[in-house]
Amino acid sequence: MSEHFQILKKEGKAKRGIFHTPHGDIETPVFMNVGTAAAIKGAVSTVDLKEIGCQVELSNTYHLHVRPGDELIHDLGGLHKFMNWDRPILTDSGGFQVFSLASLRSIKEEGVEFRSHVDGRRIFMGPEESIRIQSNLASTIAMAFDECPSSRAEKSYVEKSADRTYRWLIRCKEELKRLSECEDTINKEQMLFGINQGAVFPEIRIDHAKRISELDLPGYAIGGLAVGETHEEMYGIIEETVPFRPDDRPVYLMGVGTPANILEAVERGVDFFDCVYPSRNGRHGHVYTNRGKLNLFNQKYEKDPAPIEEGCHCPACTHYSRAYIRHLLKAGEMLGMRLCVLHNLYFYNTMMAEIREALDEGRFASYKKAKLDGMSIS
Amino acid sequence: MSEHFQILKKEGKAKRGIFHTPHGDIETPVFMNVGTAAAIKGAVSTVDLKEIGCQVELSNTYHLHVRPGDELIHDLGGLHKFMNWDRPILTDSGGFQVFSLASLRSIKEEGVEFRSHVDGRRIFMGPEESIRIQSNLASTIAMAFDECPSSRAEKSYVEKSADRTYRWLIRCKEELKRLSECEDTINKEQMLFGINQGAVFPEIRIDHAKRISELDLPGYAIGGLAVGETHEEMYGIIEETVPFRPDDRPVYLMGVGTPANILEAVERGVDFFDCVYPSRNGRHGHVYTNRGKLNLFNQKYEKDPAPIEEGCHCPACTHYSRAYIRHLLKAGEMLGMRLCVLHNLYFYNTMMAEIREALDEGRFASYKKAKLDGMSIS
Repeated sequence: MSEHFQILKKEGKAKRGIFHTPHGDIETPVFMNVGTAAAIKGAVSTVDLKEIGCQVELSNTYHLHVRPGDELIHDLGGLHKFMNWDRPILTDSGGFQVFSLASLRSIKEEGVEFRSHVDGRRIFMGPEESIRIQSNLASTIAMAFDECPSSRAEKSYVEKSADRTYRWLIRCKEELKRLSECEDTINKEQMLFGINQGAVFPEIRIDHAKRISELDLPGYAIGGLAVGETHEEMYGIIEETVPFRPDDRPVYLMGVGTPANILEAVERGVDFFDCVYPSRNGRHGHVYTNRGKLNLFNQKYEKDPAPIEEGCHCPACTHYSRAYIRHLLKAGEMLGMRLCVLHNLYFYNTMMAEIREALDEGRFASYKKAKLDGMSIS
Repeated sequence: MSEHFQILKKEGKAKRGIFHTPHGDIETPVFMNVGTAAAIKGAVSTVDLKEIGCQVELSNTYHLHVRPGDELIHDLGGLHKFMNWDRPILTDSGGFQVFSLASLRSIKEEGVEFRSHVDGRRIFMGPEESIRIQSNLASTIAMAFDECPSSRAEKSYVEKSADRTYRWLIRCKEELKRLSECEDTINKEQMLFGINQGAVFPEIRIDHAKRISELDLPGYAIGGLAVGETHEEMYGIIEETVPFRPDDRPVYLMGVGTPANILEAVERGVDFFDCVYPSRNGRHGHVYTNRGKLNLFNQKYEKDPAPIEEGCHCPACTHYSRAYIRHLLKAGEMLGMRLCVLHNLYFYNTMMAEIREALDEGRFASYKKAKLDGMSIS
């Protein structure tokens, strides 16, 4: 039994649970709202996050290390105080950004050397550095520093990379333990999630999953998905690796995905999600409804007095019409983006609440079918 | 006695009043919050406006005519419904924008022909067109269509222009009367404010003020100031023209200005103000405090855990630090702009409430001195 994760109900592999953290309980399955640089893009604040039902905020270690600097955030009391957010925060390890954003990287056993995307300065990041940065940020959950190889990488490379990611995980765990005993560590109870890698190779994924499971971490993520493989490959990998991880620990599927992806993954045993889709789509006027996605730039909404979705209680739908929001988007008014982002995050957070309720009541399968059928209308 | 304007108290020329409108009372002196295209720039909504003490929202006729179109707004029930704002709205006439934004304009007795700044299409606007557009928008207060000549214009030109603006005002009044009797007019009680012009020439200003005063309008504005003349010239013109307007009607000083400008103008008998400074400055990280303006991009706020202003109850100061807002601004996060704009508009609206309280209590002179002394510290 995990001291953190309590499973209330199961329906097939789908789990309804509660994850206990020093910053409060997380009801799972949960969608974490992405605030890369300690702010949700689209002028959304932590006060807004409470209003739209966000349980966990996710920030990016790499971005905050580069600007404003994790030491500055440490000196100001940590990310919770900096952003004024008293619920759980998950920070990624920076690994994904190092491999996708930074230029001129060179990978060694110690870690990765690369150049900042902001000012070009040389930065070295390995497991210890990543954990130290996350300790400065004092998030609730820290992610292990990993390499996320391309879904097109050769098997021999992925094998070597997964081995190294495993060795890095051990170093992350040790560094976190050391820091938890340091006096000026803000969150001495910071938790570490391990990350399963192995690209699209089941044997590597399974072997890696088994080895990291032995480390007795409070949670495990599946990384390196949604990076170019098909949805079917992704679902296949989830199915193949879930049996090889401790079933009393939550599973976090990193960077995924569409509402349909989430429903499919919950069915396959995933508990934590995060994705930039709702905020990124919102900034482009693409909004989610139970009858599919709408593009509010479409002329047919020009005189539409209806809210984005009838019956939606988000701050946009409560007060404003499609016609008004479309006008704002066309006129380049930031308010248009803000309203769409608020709606989309509310849609995701509400869908997760519906999923939890359906699991509570043992009707997830029928809920999932009805939700998918509805969303595929338009 | 005006049926709309009730003067509760006077201190010198400064007035404490209530202006009654079909959309509720306006406590004066008042600062109107500018939402050019039916939205406050900086992702601020009408729900936010209520929270920061806004009494009157101001929108721009020219912008809304060009996009999304005043007929569309009419068909959706008018600007109040479009923006979801149930308090007073003032619309300008479009005149100022026609003369400052549009290109290829030609002025005739009938009106002005120009090209849209959005798509270059040819638009004709005269007094009747401006009033019809404002009637479609259904604002609480419509402004007369006027020409705003440059503060550097020749006296002979300004004389001719002021005469034409007077003739245009009569046509505006007649058109509004006609529209108030049309069935599909949304706001049949829409009010018209006349605008005094005459550049920096006292004789022209005074003669024009006398003539427009005879038209018995519910309010009168001073236009064509804050367009290049000095503050002293501006204060001089206010002093010279205020005696020649009906003293039972509110005076609106268009497009003005800094907190100091407002305090000086209230002392000289002005009741209504509007200005883009608080929102524009906010978007650039310049924030108002009782100890002067701060530039939050300044490095000295990097680790500053204090709010923008101690004791301020705005949504930014209630929840966030200078250090956090500075980080947001530096990282290009829209939230930084939103928080600064909210703070600045709250600062202006609160200053107006303080002015009204000081007038109520007969201590405006000492309030004004203390406020100006405080703001000049930094």
